[in-house]
Amino acid sequence: MKKEIQKWMDSKKPEAISFLQKMVRSNSEQGKEKEVQMLIADKLQDIGLEVDVWHPDDEAFFRHPYFCATRTDFSNSPNVAGILKGSGGGRSIVLNGHVDVVPPGDLSQWENDPYSGEIKDGKLYGRGATDMKGGNLCLLLAIQCLKDLNVPLKGDVIFHSVMEEESGGAGTLAAILRGYTADAAIIPEPTNMKIFPSQQGSMWFRINVYGRSAHGGTRYEGVSALEKAMIVVKELQDLEKARNERITDPLYQNIPIPVPINLGKISGGEWPSSVPDHIVIEGRIGVAPCESLEDVKGELEDRMASLNDQWLKEHPPAVEWFGAQWLPGSIDQDHDLMKLLSNRFTEICQCEPVIEASPWGTDGGLLTSVGHTPSIVFGPGVTSVAHYPDEHIELDKIFQAAEIITLTIMDWCGGIETETKEDLLVKKDT
Amino acid sequence: MKKEIQKWMDSKKPEAISFLQKMVRSNSEQGKEKEVQMLIADKLQDIGLEVDVWHPDDEAFFRHPYFCATRTDFSNSPNVAGILKGSGGGRSIVLNGHVDVVPPGDLSQWENDPYSGEIKDGKLYGRGATDMKGGNLCLLLAIQCLKDLNVPLKGDVIFHSVMEEESGGAGTLAAILRGYTADAAIIPEPTNMKIFPSQQGSMWFRINVYGRSAHGGTRYEGVSALEKAMIVVKELQDLEKARNERITDPLYQNIPIPVPINLGKISGGEWPSSVPDHIVIEGRIGVAPCESLEDVKGELEDRMASLNDQWLKEHPPAVEWFGAQWLPGSIDQDHDLMKLLSNRFTEICQCEPVIEASPWGTDGGLLTSVGHTPSIVFGPGVTSVAHYPDEHIELDKIFQAAEIITLTIMDWCGGIETETKEDLLVKKDT
Repeated sequence: MKKEIQKWMDSKKPEAISFLQKMVRSNSEQGKEKEVQMLIADKLQDIGLEVDVWHPDDEAFFRHPYFCATRTDFSNSPNVAGILKGSGGGRSIVLNGHVDVVPPGDLSQWENDPYSGEIKDGKLYGRGATDMKGGNLCLLLAIQCLKDLNVPLKGDVIFHSVMEEESGGAGTLAAILRGYTADAAIIPEPTNMKIFPSQQGSMWFRINVYGRSAHGGTRYEGVSALEKAMIVVKELQDLEKARNERITDPLYQNIPIPVPINLGKISGGEWPSSVPDHIVIEGRIGVAPCESLEDVKGELEDRMASLNDQWLKEHPPAVEWFGAQWLPGSIDQDHDLMKLLSNRFTEICQCEPVIEASPWGTDGGLLTSVGHTPSIVFGPGVTSVAHYPDEHIELDKIFQAAEIITLTIMDWCGGIETETKEDLLVKKDT
Repeated sequence: MKKEIQKWMDSKKPEAISFLQKMVRSNSEQGKEKEVQMLIADKLQDIGLEVDVWHPDDEAFFRHPYFCATRTDFSNSPNVAGILKGSGGGRSIVLNGHVDVVPPGDLSQWENDPYSGEIKDGKLYGRGATDMKGGNLCLLLAIQCLKDLNVPLKGDVIFHSVMEEESGGAGTLAAILRGYTADAAIIPEPTNMKIFPSQQGSMWFRINVYGRSAHGGTRYEGVSALEKAMIVVKELQDLEKARNERITDPLYQNIPIPVPINLGKISGGEWPSSVPDHIVIEGRIGVAPCESLEDVKGELEDRMASLNDQWLKEHPPAVEWFGAQWLPGSIDQDHDLMKLLSNRFTEICQCEPVIEASPWGTDGGLLTSVGHTPSIVFGPGVTSVAHYPDEHIELDKIFQAAEIITLTIMDWCGGIETETKEDLLVKKDT
């Protein structure tokens, strides 16, 4: 079966690359996902799946505690699901990929148009190529391969093509609430082919630091919110240190800062000649799988309420939690799906996979906590260029990952027990 | 003569207050000075002066090294000058007042409309009341009084009503270039009735601090421009300390920070989840009268080029000098005009004046350095509410200052030598 799959993959390469170019060339920033979603819905139809295209707009969705979006109008942003029904009595799997992309940023830093889809030296360029349309292509190839080759599957394969991952997961949440959950999930976010059984959560915060105005020439009559903001920054650095000292899981041993606190944006003060009386710091705090979002909020808020500065004790910074948040998630490192995926990885790549904790949030948290669908994040994209100029993906890795995922689904949904896999490995070694 | 002047002032109070209300009610933010200037030009005409109203627009003006404005179109912003000719052979004086005001800022912090001109408990409220239309009223009262009472003046009295003081002095520069200079000047900026023989200069700077982008979840792969900005801030605090340790003039002994460096505005970073790669700090550095603007620029730039941090040594912050600048100025504390003003102050207020260095820039620097017109800054306004909500001025102080200024002009332009004044004082003591 493996040989068949490899042959099939090879034959589909040109067509698949062409489809990926189409997907990348479609600008699917927030609010513009419709075009690429229809492309994918059509493809799923062609493959022969049951396809569901819908615009989430019901109260249960909007009122959900983990509904996290800056909008309620998704009329131009459909969600798509495709189902390959199994024969019954087996383990189901969700294959989840988001189609939304972040904005290109500073255009002058891109060598070509951010939606070029250009191929050079075996790499395909464009915003979304790595994060994560290349990964989505793996899923589409896997499903199409399994369908075309009539691979026997007992459990259902449920494909999610979602919007809003970059802004907090409303697309995946909608899919979960519509019933598209399973026994486990694979999400091919750009992991550089590492396997992440553990996915960091994160939350965005905004800290308002207050001072007192004065004319710059008599600045000693005021209290500089900028000077006070520096005390806040130091406290957050200290908090980050303390939080990370608590992480002992060997999964994190090669990660310099497992759960970072990033200060991404600062602004305040209105006039060079005035003492600033209000500084705003926006950032993102990582959440470890063992933590709840509420606990982490409490920890940061406590620190802001007890700063070692008289003015700040009397005028404590105000903390807001806003925008995007990602629940942490994790799957047991001994989970069957982990074993199957790792084994197939080793088989195809001829080396052991790197198992690590993800440094960023994904919809895996929602799938795990709300969908009760433990998730593994594994994909061919290049982590370091996601969200950056000249984003690209290596085409070879896409096909390698597609093979691994196809075989893993075959194992998981096909009902192959891990004992049998170990037998296979023993056979391979001799 | 003093009694005549007092009587005249008393009789003019209601009319004068009403005129001040009119001036304050006219919104004269940058670009909107025309209405109030025409009000003043008409008043000067009524008083019987030679009046000059013009819109500066010649090359010599625009190309002047101290031309400092964000615009070259002054077609809606006239400058006004009024001359009371002396009989000849005496000392001339410039009376300089700006009509432009800063924006009101956060309207919710004003109890009434910022241009209300309302009077309550002896105070007149509104943007510009204290900075500095109340002071301008003193000058108009002084001139009108001297004219009405036919006080003998040998030297010319030259009244400047200028725009653009708040943005770097283009109005006063235009007046100087048009020839309206004199042997000395009085500028009634809001000094709380203190006498400032020394006026601080200042310059606006912008410092660009660079880092390296990365995803917030892997922030250790980047270099946070915000963390680097904190090093820059500390260096500027250190520079301020060093610069102020050099100030030994007893004129500054009651001033906590004679030449402050104020950091007024900070901004940078685009996204809570990204490591910021560019932070911009804008601020204002004070310049002592003994310093040149070029020396001060050099000192700050040197500090930015030699920060004690490896990344910043290799990627030094970029310094820009922009926007408004004020030359420092000073008049000898023994200058005749200083003596005359101080004596008249003591006489009218029955106590010694406080002599100090000004904590902020004024057009006195331009008058001193470019106009060769040494200047004293002295006025009835309340320094602490200039540029702030609920700006106001005490009416009593306006009339007190008007008396003092009238008598001082009489002494200076009338040809009374300081010896005679000391005789008068000896007489008073006995």
